[in-house]
Amino acid sequence: MIQIAVFGYGTVGSGVVEVIEKNKDVINKKAGEQLNIKYVLDLRDFPGDPVQEKLVKDVNIILDDPEVKIICETMGGIRPAYDFTKQALQKGKSVCTSNKELVASHGPELLRLARENKCNYLFEASVGGGIPIIRPLNYSLTAEKIDGITGILNGTTNYILTKMDREGADFDTVLKEAQEKGYAEKNPEADVEGYDACRKIAILSSLMCLKNVKYEDIYTEGITKITAKDFLYAKEMDMSIKLLAMSKNVGEEYFAMVAPFLISKEHPLYSVNDVFNAVFVHGNMLGDSMYYGRGAGKLPTASAVVSDVVDCARHIGKTVMCLWEDVDVKLADIDRVSRRFFVRVDSSKADMAKVEEIFGHVTVVKTAALPDEAGYVTEVMTEREFREKAEKLGAVISRIRIED
Amino acid sequence: MIQIAVFGYGTVGSGVVEVIEKNKDVINKKAGEQLNIKYVLDLRDFPGDPVQEKLVKDVNIILDDPEVKIICETMGGIRPAYDFTKQALQKGKSVCTSNKELVASHGPELLRLARENKCNYLFEASVGGGIPIIRPLNYSLTAEKIDGITGILNGTTNYILTKMDREGADFDTVLKEAQEKGYAEKNPEADVEGYDACRKIAILSSLMCLKNVKYEDIYTEGITKITAKDFLYAKEMDMSIKLLAMSKNVGEEYFAMVAPFLISKEHPLYSVNDVFNAVFVHGNMLGDSMYYGRGAGKLPTASAVVSDVVDCARHIGKTVMCLWEDVDVKLADIDRVSRRFFVRVDSSKADMAKVEEIFGHVTVVKTAALPDEAGYVTEVMTEREFREKAEKLGAVISRIRIED
Repeated sequence: MIQIAVFGYGTVGSGVVEVIEKNKDVINKKAGEQLNIKYVLDLRDFPGDPVQEKLVKDVNIILDDPEVKIICETMGGIRPAYDFTKQALQKGKSVCTSNKELVASHGPELLRLARENKCNYLFEASVGGGIPIIRPLNYSLTAEKIDGITGILNGTTNYILTKMDREGADFDTVLKEAQEKGYAEKNPEADVEGYDACRKIAILSSLMCLKNVKYEDIYTEGITKITAKDFLYAKEMDMSIKLLAMSKNVGEEYFAMVAPFLISKEHPLYSVNDVFNAVFVHGNMLGDSMYYGRGAGKLPTASAVVSDVVDCARHIGKTVMCLWEDVDVKLADIDRVSRRFFVRVDSSKADMAKVEEIFGHVTVVKTAALPDEAGYVTEVMTEREFREKAEKLGAVISRIRIED
Repeated sequence: MIQIAVFGYGTVGSGVVEVIEKNKDVINKKAGEQLNIKYVLDLRDFPGDPVQEKLVKDVNIILDDPEVKIICETMGGIRPAYDFTKQALQKGKSVCTSNKELVASHGPELLRLARENKCNYLFEASVGGGIPIIRPLNYSLTAEKIDGITGILNGTTNYILTKMDREGADFDTVLKEAQEKGYAEKNPEADVEGYDACRKIAILSSLMCLKNVKYEDIYTEGITKITAKDFLYAKEMDMSIKLLAMSKNVGEEYFAMVAPFLISKEHPLYSVNDVFNAVFVHGNMLGDSMYYGRGAGKLPTASAVVSDVVDCARHIGKTVMCLWEDVDVKLADIDRVSRRFFVRVDSSKADMAKVEEIFGHVTVVKTAALPDEAGYVTEVMTEREFREKAEKLGAVISRIRIED
C-alpha cells in the first residue's frame, strides 16, 4: 500500500480524489500496488464530504509522516506551493503537479531536488490537461532530435476563437458568455493575454532544448485584438485564427513565441476546436506527430496527475529521467523569424499598387462586408522586415501572422 | 556502454542503424548510457556498407555473447523471428520489435518470458509506425478505464482511399499507382484486405482489455469493394471513407472490427490523409485523446524501435509493466453492434417508399452522376437488423457503415 496526500482540494485536487476512487481497480493494477489517499491539505472545511476525515490544515503533519510517499500538488500559484514542494522532495516524497506556473519558474531546481533525494517531480498535468505530452516527450520520442513544437495550449482562448469563428461574434461578447459559463475566469488576463500558453510552451520548449527556457523571455501576444472583422477575412481565405504557442530550433538557435495565427483548413490544428488542445511535435526522424485531447477540466487534468502518481509508484526509490538542465537557453530574437503575414489596409490611404510598392508581391483578399478596406497576404519575410514595411505604409489597420 | 544487435537489415533494420548513428548524441543522453550496435544479423551481404563489418549470419554468435543486452527484431514474419526472440529473452536479452504479426500472435507468451528473465519485450513500432501509442497506453493513460480505441492503422489503404477521394479514381487504378510508387506491396492482400490493421487493433485491444484479443476473432473487411461511385455519395454527404480498426468495451462485453466507414468532416479522423495514421483512445475520465503521425516508413518506424531500445537501456535488469494477460478475451458478436448504415439501392427495383417500408425512416442521398440508383442513410440499427432488412429489400447495390 502506498500512501498519498493531496495538496489543495479545489477543482483538480477533488478530481484527483474522484479519479483514484472511481478507477481504483485499474489504477492499483497498473501501479502494481494499492494506492490510498491518507491526507488532503486544505485550509477550508468540507462538511459532509467524505474527504473531511482526511483533511489537515497543517502541512507538517503530512511532511512528517514517513508513510506518505507521493504528493499531488494541485494548489496552483507559486506560494506556498513552491515551499511545500521543496520540503516534500527534500524528505524523499515524490510530487506530482498540475501547477504550470511553478514548473515553468522553478522546474530545473525541483527536478534536481528530486534527483538528489531519489524521488520524482512529475508534471504531466501542467501542459495540455489530460493529453499525454510530457511523457511522450520524455519516454517516447527519445530517438528524435526534436526541432519544433507548435500547440494550441489554452482551452479558454480556443473556446473563444472557435465561437467567434462559428458565430461571427466579437471578442467581448464571447468572452462575457464564456465567463458566464465558467469557461473563462472573472479575471481572464492570464488566458486571453497568452500568459498561460506562455508558461506551457516554456515547459515544452525546455524539454525540447533539454535546458531551461525562461517564460519571461518568450514573446507573447494574446487574442484581445482579434475582431469579428478578422474572421470575415479568415473565412474568405478558408482559414481560421488560433492562438498558437510555438518553439523552433533552427541551427544553433531557438525561437519561441505565443500569438494568434491564421491557419488553413489543411492544417491539422485547424479542426482543434472548443476547449480541446493539441500539440504538434516535429522530430528529425519521425517528422510530425500530434497529441490531441481535452486541455483542461477537472477529470482530464486529474487523470494526468494520477498517471504521474502511478509512474511514481512504479519508481519508488528511483528517479525517472527528465533532461531539463538548470542552464538558461538564450532565445533568439523573433525579429529574425520569417513567415507570411496577413495585413488589413485602409483603402482610402493606400491602394494595392502602393501596398505592392512597399511589400512586394501580395495576394489581395476582399470581403463585401468591409468595402473601405482590403486584406493582403504578403510573401515570406522576417518579422522585422514586415514591421518596417508596415510602418512605412502607414495605413495598416491590423496584421495577423500566418502559420503554413 | 550497452551493446545492441539488430536482427534483419531490411527497411526497418537499416533505419534503426541510421537513427542510432545520426542521433547518437541525444539518444545516448536520453538512454543514460552509450549505445553501440555490435552485430547485425542478416543472411545477405552488404559489400561497401559500413554494416558489413558487424554482419553475422549465425544467430548463436549474438545469443551467446553476454555483452549484448538489447536486440532489435526487425525481421518480420513468425519464423524464425519467434524462435530467435524466445531464445534471446530466455538469455535475459531485451527485445524491441516492429513485428506486428509476432506480437499479435505470441505477445503474452513473449511478455511472460521477458518477466521471467528480468528483461523486456517492447513493441512500440508494431502499431502506428512512429506514432507513440503503446507507451501512452501503458505509461500515460494509467488512470483511465479505456473503453474505446478507433484508428486508421494502415498507411497503404489510407493512401489509396485518400487518392480515390481526391481524384475520383477507382480502386484498381490507384492500387496500381501505389504499387509503382512503392506505397503498396506487389501482393497487396495484407493491406487492402485489412489483415495488417487487424493485427494492429488486436494488439491495441489487448492493451485495452489487459487480456489477450486474438486477431483471428476480429471481424475484418478490407477496402477492395469500395468504388469511385461510393465516393460520389460520400462527397454529397460531406464525408469521406476510411478503413477504421476499432475496439469497444460496452458493459462486460468487448467488440472489435476492421472495416471501411463513412466519416463526416467534423470527425477528427476525417483529415488524417495519405500515409498518416491516427489512433483515437476514449477513456472514462479523459474522454477522447488522439495520437497522430507517420504510420509507416523506414525512419519513423525505426525511431519507434530505438525509443524501445532507450526504454530497455533505462531499465536493465527490470521489467517495465505491460498488462497483457495470457487469457483470451471472448469477443462479442458484432451482429449486436448498433450504428447507422449507408446503403445504395437500385431505383428500378425499389423506390424510397419501398426502402422506408423495410428500413423505417431514411435520409435519401442523390448524385446526378448515378441517375439509376439512390443512396439512403438509415437510422441506428444493429448489424443483424441491417443485414436482414437488406436481404428482404433485395435491391441493395452496396452498403458502408457510418461512424458517428
